Order: sequence, then C-alpha cells, then structure tokens
Amino acid sequence: MPTSPLARPFPALPPIVGVTLRVARAHYKKWDRCDLTFAELAPGTVVTGVLTQSRCSSPEVDWCRAALPLGHARALVVNAGNSNAFTGGRGRAAVEAIAARAARTLGCKPSDVFVASTGVIGVPLPVDKAEAGLDAAFAAPPATWLEATTAIGTTDTFPKAASATAIVDGRAVNLVGIIKGSGMIAPDMATMLGFIFTDAAVDPAFLQAALNHANTRSFSCITVDGDTSTSDTVLAFATDVAGNVPLTGDDSLGADAFRAALDALCRDLAQLVVRDGEGASKFIEIAVTGAESDRSAHRVAMSIANSPLVKTAIAGEDANWGRIVMAVGKAGEPADRDRLSIRFGETEVAREGVAVPSYSEVPVSAHLKGQDVEIGVDLGLGEGRATVWTCDLTHGYISINADYRS
Amino acid sequence: MPTSPLARPFPALPPIVGVTLRVARAHYKKWDRCDLTFAELAPGTVVTGVLTQSRCSSPEVDWCRAALPLGHARALVVNAGNSNAFTGGRGRAAVEAIAARAARTLGCKPSDVFVASTGVIGVPLPVDKAEAGLDAAFAAPPATWLEATTAIGTTDTFPKAASATAIVDGRAVNLVGIIKGSGMIAPDMATMLGFIFTDAAVDPAFLQAALNHANTRSFSCITVDGDTSTSDTVLAFATDVAGNVPLTGDDSLGADAFRAALDALCRDLAQLVVRDGEGASKFIEIAVTGAESDRSAHRVAMSIANSPLVKTAIAGEDANWGRIVMAVGKAGEPADRDRLSIRFGETEVAREGVAVPSYSEVPVSAHLKGQDVEIGVDLGLGEGRATVWTCDLTHGYISINADYRS
Repeated sequence: MPTSPLARPFPALPPIVGVTLRVARAHYKKWDRCDLTFAELAPGTVVTGVLTQSRCSSPEVDWCRAALPLGHARALVVNAGNSNAFTGGRGRAAVEAIAARAARTLGCKPSDVFVASTGVIGVPLPVDKAEAGLDAAFAAPPATWLEATTAIGTTDTFPKAASATAIVDGRAVNLVGIIKGSGMIAPDMATMLGFIFTDAAVDPAFLQAALNHANTRSFSCITVDGDTSTSDTVLAFATDVAGNVPLTGDDSLGADAFRAALDALCRDLAQLVVRDGEGASKFIEIAVTGAESDRSAHRVAMSIANSPLVKTAIAGEDANWGRIVMAVGKAGEPADRDRLSIRFGETEVAREGVAVPSYSEVPVSAHLKGQDVEIGVDLGLGEGRATVWTCDLTHGYISINADYRS
Repeated sequence: MPTSPLARPFPALPPIVGVTLRVARAHYKKWDRCDLTFAELAPGTVVTGVLTQSRCSSPEVDWCRAALPLGHARALVVNAGNSNAFTGGRGRAAVEAIAARAARTLGCKPSDVFVASTGVIGVPLPVDKAEAGLDAAFAAPPATWLEATTAIGTTDTFPKAASATAIVDGRAVNLVGIIKGSGMIAPDMATMLGFIFTDAAVDPAFLQAALNHANTRSFSCITVDGDTSTSDTVLAFATDVAGNVPLTGDDSLGADAFRAALDALCRDLAQLVVRDGEGASKFIEIAVTGAESDRSAHRVAMSIANSPLVKTAIAGEDANWGRIVMAVGKAGEPADRDRLSIRFGETEVAREGVAVPSYSEVPVSAHLKGQDVEIGVDLGLGEGRATVWTCDLTHGYISINADYRS
C-alpha cells in the first residue's frame, strides 16, 4: 500500500526510563519483517487499559481484562499478522504459552505479561512461531520507538506515535504512545492497539481514571468504517522512575498537568489512526453543539461520521449538506429539523432548518478541496457538545477490502 | 446509470379497479421525463402507511402522518427529483398547495390527498411547477403501471413493482405495489417510497395492522448503505370494489390469505430495492438464528448487513468470515463467541467459535461467485431468528456518490 496522503512524519520521541523495547521475526505471515514486539518494563510498573466491547473479543483481550485489575506489568508482547481471534481453546492456549515463557525469562508472574495480537481472524496463533520469536526477541538488542511502532503495524501505511510531557511535582514526566490501526476502526469506549508508556509515578486507580477520561475524548471519538474490531486494546504503563511524588488522585500536585498531557497524547494517537484510515484522502472533524447532552451530541456526530453518503460526498468535495441532515435525522437522538444549523469550515450553509440563501460557494468549495475538512452542526436544543474525527470513503477503501482476497 | 446487474424484468400487473394513474412533466429537474405522478382513488378508499422515523423528516412525511389517522384517501401525488426535505415553511406551503389543488379538482378534503416527494434535500419544491404539473396530469390520459413506476423513480436503474392475489370470502382480491429506491436505504420501521393498491374491502385498522406486520418482515429488513432517508414512505390504499365482505380483523374470512399476500408483496418490493442498490453486484440474504429474541437476531443481522468490511468481502467473492465474527461482536447484542456458527450457502465454515477444519473451499467459492449470496449465522443461545437483505459495497457505490457532484 502507498503511504496515506494524510500521513505525518514520525516524531522525535524521548526514551522512557524503565521501558526496553526489542523486536523479532516470528514469521506469522510470509513476510520478511519484524512482527513480534517485546517491551520489558521495570519492576514496579503500573498498568491500566481500555479494551474492546466486542462480544467476540480475542483471547488476548480476555487475558488483559483478567490481568488488568492486578495492576502490575513487567512485559508487553505484541504479535502482528494474526489476531488470534475466534480460535477457541487453541487461541487461549497460545496466549498462556506466551505469557508463561516471558514470565519465566523475567522471573515474574504470567499475569504480569500483557499480550496483544492483530491481523487475520480465525487462525490460531502458532505457538511454536510465537515461542521462537520470543526467544529471538529476548536475545535481540534494544529497538527504537520507530522499530517497535513499525513491528506492531499490519495494513498501516505509516508508523504512528506521539509524545507529551507534564510537569508533575516540579519534575518533567514523559509520556510516549505508539499505535496501529487503519481499517476495522470504530472503537466503542476502546480501540485498536495502542500502547502508552510514561516514567511517572502514578497510582493505578488514578492512571485508569485518567486513561478513561482521555479515551472518551480520543479513541472513542474516531471511526474509519464503523466496524469495531475484536482486538481493540489500549494499555498504559507507568514505570515509576521519574521521581515525582506519586499521583494518586485529582488533588495530587500535577494531576491536572498529567491528565492534560495524557489527553493530548491520546488525541494525537487517535487522529493518526484516522489519518491512516483505509483509502482516506480527507481528514474530517465533525463538531456537534447544541445537543441535549454530550452523549447525545456524540451519537449524532458518530451518525454523521459513519454515514457512507456523507463520507463519499466529502471524497467528491461536494458540499452536499442534505446528507448531513439525513445523518442527523437517522441518529435517533433528540433533534428538531427547524433549529438545525450546518457549517463547512467557517461558512454556515444551513440555519434553522433551511439553506442560508446567500451563502458563498467560494469559501466552501475551497475548504472542501483541502485535506482537512471541518463540519459543524448545531442542534439548537441545549448545551451538549462532542467532536469526532473520521476520514472520507473512497475507491481506495473498496480496492483495499474487495479487490484482494484475504 | 446502467441497469443494475441484479435487475428483474417488469412484471405483468393486473389493474386495480378504483385506481386511475396519470403522469406529467413538472420539470422538477432539467430532464425530459415525467416526474409527477397522480393516482386518483375511488370514493371510499381506505389508506394506511408507515413513515420514516427520521428526526428530520420531510414536510410530505409530516403531512401524511397527520392525515393517516383519518383513514381516507382520494388521491396520491408523487414528485420525483426534489424531496422538499429541510425546506422550512416554504416546503410545508408547497405540500399544502398541492393537496389543496388536487382536492379542489376532485371535490374532496385536502387531507384526502397524500403527497410524497423524493430527490435532492434542501431545495423547496417549486409550487408553480407542481401546480402546472398537476394541471397537466389532470388532463392526461390514464397511465400504465410501468409509466407510473418509471415516473416516481430518481436514481433507480430499473422500474420496480410486484403483485399478489388472495382469495377473500370466495373472491379474488388483487394487490399491486410500486416502489422506488436505490441509495439512502436503511428503513427503520419504514422505507423509501412505496405505494400499494388493492381492490379489497378492508377496515383501516386491520389494513394498518397487516401493513405493520408485513413491514417488519420486508422494508425494515433491508439496507443498502445504512443511511435512513428523510422521506421514507409506504402507503397502502384499498379501494373497496372487490365485493368481499370487509376484512375487519384476524378472524375475518380470508384474513390470513390477505395478510400472506401483503407479506409476499412487501417482501418482493423490498428485495427489488436491494436489487437496485447503488453499485450492487450481489444480492445478499443474511439469516440469523439462535438469538435470544427475534429483535436481537434482527439487530445482529443488520450489523452484518451494514458492515462495510463484510459488504466489500462479498464484492470480492472472499469467504472472509472473520469479518462476520467482527460484525456479530460489535452488534451489542447477547452473543457467545464460543457458540457461534457461520455458513455460506449450505457450507458451514465455522462452528462453536472455531473454523471448521475440513470445510471444502469449492462449494463456498462457487456460491460466492453467484449473484445471490446467503450468509447464515447461528448464535446458539435461543430461538430468536431474523432474515435481512442487503447488497455488496463496490466501486460503483463510490462512483455514484463521490465521483459526481450533486
């Protein structure tokens, strides 16, 4: 696949003390690339996460769901090329074998090892390849963020990562996140595979609360195709080496700064996934205001973001706001046709249920020809608001998903 | 647009005594074709309907919603090329003007005149064109079913109609339905524009109940793109000339036969819309069994039917059942990954949460190469079942909706 036209250059990222990355070739597919990533985490590392709500979740997701309440992590293993989802008892056994082998090497409990896999559904992850790959990773030299980010990717067309810093208790705390995802993206309170590392000292409960907060404003606000994956996983690891007085709650010194940094990091990562959406040629921000509640605004925004008719109109650079009216109407949320206003970029094209008679086509057309498109919808009912991000629907999406056999 | 490869020939249709069709050129768009349809209905005609649940419904839908409880109809006016949706007070005034003009000509109440419009959203229906078109229709000779069906179409690539008969009280009762729709098809308890005519004597309450029953098994079970229209309307008119003892309830002589005929007619019409789905190359039937309830089965089936990844896989003739697992998982309905079974045509490819190790690719591949594809999903939980119909997602859909400006 050619690199997405919406790609961003890989950023400079600081090291996170307490995190050692290694990558290896497990040969999960017939490719000559690293597809197994092993992150060793310092003793004392705290972990939290958000996981897919799919009723057909992968055994990796089930494993993480069981281990997360314990709150401690010593390793992360990521397999690319095989999601291991829908593989019954053999899939579960593969995850247990990976965790056991890593635990033996590190001298920790299997529940301290977090596992995530991405790729084809329905083929059990081959245990022999996983174990050989793990052994190769244990022996490999440390890898860079770029190498690890590349190794977790599958159909991704560019490696996606971001960082943030916060001053906590007078000390600079670093956060780095890496993420993969391009299709089957519609996280519902969770997401694709994303991994966040920080050197901060953070209480697990506070880290989970901060991650939940960031998640509802980032990963839960993106969609490529409305198809929620079986394997969506975001894990956040805190290695507790920055030397700050531990963050334990909203009243802790620096809690606001840490939360703001985590929010910004998650938003950056989520937007990068949309920028690598399958076939995407436009990055679309949809802001809904005036809803009865934030939750209602979110549902209306996602109804617009998932509408194939809206997404194809944007692909065609067509200011077809009637399709936005349609998508508002079908959302099933409170809406009053005669109070509805719609804008593209800064130009209001419809107000209180009718077209703005005199709006200028020129700025609208210029805005839609750009790579970044903003759609604003005001429902005129209340104070609820939400912003979500998606991409357009193009021939590229069809080519990627229909023209080639899996 | 070329005719859909899934098109069906226009059927031979019986006349319905008490229904006189006329068509005219109102010039709602720059085209040289009839785009206004006028159906005169005999005095005593009973009417029922189902209408879109969109919160941004058109003034035509609002008009019908207000008039339906009165139960009587003398005329139907259908405008093609302009949906008149999202046009504020001017849109409402246009509908009132049309109803008033038809009522004056027929000597009936405006509320006896039903109006439906389809086409672009956001442009008020021009009252002068509507009135001139109506006057031309009043003076025109009677039209055939084919002429009327063609006149109500917009982006449809073939005219869609069906008929059924029932023996009621020893007399043959005829039903004819005509329908239009191709994109923006995801009726939610209602549908595109469909009109059903019967010569039966039917009590309005029974006709509404029978239509609701048929609707939940037909129009509410189809989707092309998941985008519910602002104008979806199905109206059923009964002219009471067949001479049968009126059908008043489930215990009436012939009630079962009438309901069965109406069910079959609505299913035929709904499937024709899918066969004209924008860009469709495959007709897909999705049957879900073993759900906790019929309602739950329906939601799971629609989650599969609306998944772009499933629809592109079928377009690519790819037995990618992992995407079906994904779509079951994201439906939010009770499901147990380890009880799930999936078939293509007659061939079971996954059973109880894992791939069937020995299934033969040959019949699956042959089935997917055909025009009609069947997907069966058994959830293994209960007795709930539902069947829905959709089409695949192809480059054609993108071309129709993104490559041309509206």
